[in-house]
Amino acid sequence: MYLQQLIDKLGKEKISQKEADLIRHSRDESIHAAVLPDVVCFIESREDVVEVLKIASDYQVPVTPFGAGSGLEGQAIPVQKGIVINFERMNKILNFSPEDMRITVQAGVTRLQLNKLVNDHGLMFSVDPGADAMIGGMVATNASGTTAVRYGAMRDQLLDLEVVLADGTIMHTGTLAKKSSSGYNLTGLFTGSEGTLGVITEITLKLHSIPEYSMMARCTFDSIELCARAAQTILQAGIPVLRMELIDASSISMINRHSGENFPVNHSLFFEFAGPRKSVEEEVTLASELMHKLGCENWTAANDEKKKDEIWKARKDLNYAIACQEGIEEIGGDVCVPISRMPEMVTYARNLMDKSGLNGAIWGHVGDGNFHTSIMYDPSVDGEFEIADKTNDDIVMYAIQAGGTCTGEHGVGLGKMKFQEAEHGAALEIMKRTKHMYDPNGILNPGKIF
Amino acid sequence: MYLQQLIDKLGKEKISQKEADLIRHSRDESIHAAVLPDVVCFIESREDVVEVLKIASDYQVPVTPFGAGSGLEGQAIPVQKGIVINFERMNKILNFSPEDMRITVQAGVTRLQLNKLVNDHGLMFSVDPGADAMIGGMVATNASGTTAVRYGAMRDQLLDLEVVLADGTIMHTGTLAKKSSSGYNLTGLFTGSEGTLGVITEITLKLHSIPEYSMMARCTFDSIELCARAAQTILQAGIPVLRMELIDASSISMINRHSGENFPVNHSLFFEFAGPRKSVEEEVTLASELMHKLGCENWTAANDEKKKDEIWKARKDLNYAIACQEGIEEIGGDVCVPISRMPEMVTYARNLMDKSGLNGAIWGHVGDGNFHTSIMYDPSVDGEFEIADKTNDDIVMYAIQAGGTCTGEHGVGLGKMKFQEAEHGAALEIMKRTKHMYDPNGILNPGKIF
Repeated sequence: MYLQQLIDKLGKEKISQKEADLIRHSRDESIHAAVLPDVVCFIESREDVVEVLKIASDYQVPVTPFGAGSGLEGQAIPVQKGIVINFERMNKILNFSPEDMRITVQAGVTRLQLNKLVNDHGLMFSVDPGADAMIGGMVATNASGTTAVRYGAMRDQLLDLEVVLADGTIMHTGTLAKKSSSGYNLTGLFTGSEGTLGVITEITLKLHSIPEYSMMARCTFDSIELCARAAQTILQAGIPVLRMELIDASSISMINRHSGENFPVNHSLFFEFAGPRKSVEEEVTLASELMHKLGCENWTAANDEKKKDEIWKARKDLNYAIACQEGIEEIGGDVCVPISRMPEMVTYARNLMDKSGLNGAIWGHVGDGNFHTSIMYDPSVDGEFEIADKTNDDIVMYAIQAGGTCTGEHGVGLGKMKFQEAEHGAALEIMKRTKHMYDPNGILNPGKIF
Repeated sequence: MYLQQLIDKLGKEKISQKEADLIRHSRDESIHAAVLPDVVCFIESREDVVEVLKIASDYQVPVTPFGAGSGLEGQAIPVQKGIVINFERMNKILNFSPEDMRITVQAGVTRLQLNKLVNDHGLMFSVDPGADAMIGGMVATNASGTTAVRYGAMRDQLLDLEVVLADGTIMHTGTLAKKSSSGYNLTGLFTGSEGTLGVITEITLKLHSIPEYSMMARCTFDSIELCARAAQTILQAGIPVLRMELIDASSISMINRHSGENFPVNHSLFFEFAGPRKSVEEEVTLASELMHKLGCENWTAANDEKKKDEIWKARKDLNYAIACQEGIEEIGGDVCVPISRMPEMVTYARNLMDKSGLNGAIWGHVGDGNFHTSIMYDPSVDGEFEIADKTNDDIVMYAIQAGGTCTGEHGVGLGKMKFQEAEHGAALEIMKRTKHMYDPNGILNPGKIF
């Protein structure tokens, strides 16, 4: 019945129940179980979204927004079936103001598509989560990535969102001004709300100038604790790194096996420095001194493109190395803790993974105190999943007790639901009431966060 | 009846109905009419706040939090009488972690008190609204000021808030980690909520390193439009000014009259540059070139403390010059627009004030697109208030139509209520529902924002 309504309002060519489409929209890049939606709507405008939500409200059908499908916590999986909204046809740049360093895009524009346009004007969109995610999805999960240490996460880039509410109302959460003290900050509230409060259709973003010069560097340390201390030292020295990434020895081994490389098998730090040439050169010199003072080995720095790529290659290869192990699945961690707790935290995680008897990798954005753990298990071996799951739980609870969060950048989705009470305490009840206020019928991405 | 309850729960020494106390808590620094509260509670802990809110909920008595009283939009005026919560005894630094560049304070700690402590560690709290406001009040209004162009507003400094809800529930909105994608962003929501959703009792803030070196500069232009273009030029050149302030010619005349100075009577830009010495010197050279290319006059720059003070003196004297005109009142503006609309916007405002026949001043934080207008009128002259009010309304509506906001940093309070519908449209209804969700009995700072 609601299907006919969708066809009547949107037109047949925007509605699909083809098996291939249903399968494609049944999962993301996480280990969470796929669930087929009943129908996929290839919307083309905010008005289409309004129609979908009105029909969904009338017939009480779940609606799950689906971006590039690159999420890591199952946010886009339609766990209660119903309608999936696909944004790939809603991919227009609407307004680009280089003089304001600002751009307004539809939710289906991807990160690389956006940068391709603005890079020509000496500007960049700073958030880099790795995947070529859609901007709408990046807002919905408050994505960040390697450059957040310098420019902040997705929430820090936003001026205004256009949102369609459950009843089809269209609203704007902000203005085009750089700051405002008017009314409640709904922009921040919708950022990271994972499609549970409304559907984001347009986004107005801040842009940054492309730094004129950059250098990359790499070094290794004998302990992961020292690695974390080294990252802390860089921050305390006030060196404004563009990127600062940790990869532990165990991950380096995996990369060598996977890519046939011969990177020194030790705990490694990767840096990118960017800015005016003179400043960058001074920063690299200072960083080198500080790292050597801490006992680093294998320090390498480069400014030409080829060598920079070589230095960064291990970091780039890591995701493939983990993903490509046949018959092996992983439980992914994404905790973020205060910088001062990093050394203790990564040591705890490393020891716990070693004790578990399973393969485990640690890497991440140490400049933010955000690091990832991957605990690998063979689902065909009895008990391995349970060990992996318990190990991950222990790491997350340790992070929360250290004043940190269960998710620095991937979001809650399905995988981090169980930690919400421990992390948010009394605020969780307020979050549930907020959800109910925006979505009294529970049609907006139900089964997520709570 | 509720009075006796307050005395029983808090103790007599925390409750005052002395006339002097009632008067002191009846107004802020705005022109909005004073209203005496029924009672002032000098709370000393979060538990005291819990007791006050429980009693206020039981007896349906309005509760208005009162900080330093330095607000400019009447947020702290108890317009529906009832209880005022005074925070001056809740002024402890609770946790200072220099290695995390982070501090947790009670809401009654003031900006200067905080900086006095952290400055000794080479750190600073960046937000500078001029007044020695309390941190709780600064969160409640999302305050900013002269340094927001570089470090952002209050909202950008926050990691966690402790909030007491209307029913006395204590909750935390965030964590100590630098970023999080877990749950809804309640920290952002409470920032700028002006005591209408809950009472903020503790705040965890980010700190910044004190720049090693700074220089100040000043120059003048023949038109206010050129002044705004000059500010835009500085930003587009990527010069990371610490402060960049505009003062129009009319304001400079007032300052000269008030302070007996002899500043060149023209539209003026004031700069502060800060960072590593070499970078600062390069920035000043570049800024000087760019300003001269645009036709500036009276360029002066200095690095020694005495000369820096001289350069900045006009900016500092401005507030006194406006406030000290006997028999004159002012309607204050605080719009913020996209940078590209600044030249047109300040020109429009200047022309409108000139046409009104009233004295008017323009100054502000042009690096953010945020500027203040002061339209001065004699309340004893029939019709002057109406002209001032209409002129202010026209300026604000022009800013909103330019994609801007009615308040860049002072907040809504009483003075900007009438612009909420024009600025927020459909979102205003959501804001009202949010208010109702948090405060079903309407006891939290009633009569503000909506």
